Amino acid sequence: MTVITLISSNKCFGGLQKIYSHKSKELDCEMKFAIFLPAAASDGKLPVVYWLSGLTCNETNFIQKAGAQRYASEQGLIVVCPDTSPRGVNLPGEDDSWDFGSGAGFYVDATKDPWSKHYKMFSYVTQELIDVINNNFPTVPDKQSIMGHSMGGHGALICALKNPGLYKSVSAFAPISNPTKCPWGLKAFGGYFGEDSKDEWKNWDASELVADYNGPPLELYVDQGTEDSFLKDGQLLPNNLVEACKAAQIPCVLHMREGYDHSYFYIASFIEEHLAYHARHLK
Amino acid sequence: MTVITLISSNKCFGGLQKIYSHKSKELDCEMKFAIFLPAAASDGKLPVVYWLSGLTCNETNFIQKAGAQRYASEQGLIVVCPDTSPRGVNLPGEDDSWDFGSGAGFYVDATKDPWSKHYKMFSYVTQELIDVINNNFPTVPDKQSIMGHSMGGHGALICALKNPGLYKSVSAFAPISNPTKCPWGLKAFGGYFGEDSKDEWKNWDASELVADYNGPPLELYVDQGTEDSFLKDGQLLPNNLVEACKAAQIPCVLHMREGYDHSYFYIASFIEEHLAYHARHLK
Repeated sequence: MTVITLISSNKCFGGLQKIYSHKSKELDCEMKFAIFLPAAASDGKLPVVYWLSGLTCNETNFIQKAGAQRYASEQGLIVVCPDTSPRGVNLPGEDDSWDFGSGAGFYVDATKDPWSKHYKMFSYVTQELIDVINNNFPTVPDKQSIMGHSMGGHGALICALKNPGLYKSVSAFAPISNPTKCPWGLKAFGGYFGEDSKDEWKNWDASELVADYNGPPLELYVDQGTEDSFLKDGQLLPNNLVEACKAAQIPCVLHMREGYDHSYFYIASFIEEHLAYHARHLK
Repeated sequence: MTVITLISSNKCFGGLQKIYSHKSKELDCEMKFAIFLPAAASDGKLPVVYWLSGLTCNETNFIQKAGAQRYASEQGLIVVCPDTSPRGVNLPGEDDSWDFGSGAGFYVDATKDPWSKHYKMFSYVTQELIDVINNNFPTVPDKQSIMGHSMGGHGALICALKNPGLYKSVSAFAPISNPTKCPWGLKAFGGYFGEDSKDEWKNWDASELVADYNGPPLELYVDQGTEDSFLKDGQLLPNNLVEACKAAQIPCVLHMREGYDHSYFYIASFIEEHLAYHARHLK
């Protein structure tokens, strides 16, 4: 069993908000994750919702700013938040940009050197982390869902689409919906897969993956603020995902939120709806 | 009318979470404050609750971490959060400690040089800031309450006790309840008032002030986590306040919260109760 080390524990809404570190085999480095255990976790096994954060974030942003613990307590959900990239692996240039390298793992398995040795956030999130959580906490192992924000929204969508049946539901706040067509995605995929591997890029883009999805019925539950500056800059492209879903006959719900931006003030306003959505699919 | 400059605006729970800066006359420096305006502020005048933050904080901590906007929206309350000290006034040593000087104004009016020129957070919070808010936002000018955390809990208590009738209600999370008897208070009061002015110190200590309170009925509504390390270290001394209130026949409610610590995870868990308490007194 993986050894996990407790970093902090704070009582919150009757439950415990904890942070742990552990040695990741996939990423070959020490990683931290946050886990919220509602009071009900003392009495029995609970389903888990995974949250994937956006660019520049780590395991703390969501637990400090989203206000999710209240709703997780009410719904009886464990919520797990991994970090957004390997840390401290000393690759040349990993800390040079806020939108590539550390804090910007994009939840893919890099194929290009030097990134391919450590930057395997997809395998980490969808396999290793799930094992660590199920082996150490009172979870119902086959009852899990996934959600995220921005880069993490993209991550949640591809984790669900590439692993049919693994997650009971998926949702995303302001996801990077079509990374092969936006500046953030072009930079990240060019770096992690190489400029000459455009076919590989499609395997990590939700708007491409929906066409090949073959598994249990899956709805994409997407949320987007109308005043999000990154929407206006063409980084998010939610309508490309909606169109791709229509063509592939995959159900996709896009909630446009009038006046809301890209911040945690926006996420906090609607996180209750997302957790209620996941709770309906997990119970 | 004071000129205020908008720094940021984010939609949150149907309202707007804004930050402004303005030139403070009391403090003789540029100051920032945060203000949450619920959607109902578009249709009419609303009461205001002031939040005073603790050591090392500024105007952003509460608005990012407490999750208060949901409840302020539900209750129709404007919430205002000032910074915790003058900023950038270039006094010798002002940035040397985390518990004295910048970020640690203690909501007093300093009398000792060099602090007395700028460190007048008491006058700022109880007079200038109230005028700025009432002159620029849709408030009911005589309907305001005050609350705070730790150093800001002390601040809320003394602001209410020294200004009978100004606030309709007061509440505090883990307040420094008896600063003349704890290390943080001894350091701050020694610096802001001088070691040779012990009589003056009593004018800024809630556990001393209750004996002289003479005004409309006022209850002190105090909240405290049992696992708060600063409680164990003797920095907070809530029982001294309870005893002083008994002797003075001032009603004081002390809610002990089993297992909670000093963090915003604790504040977030009970901020709904505090805002509901203030709403009952303001309506």
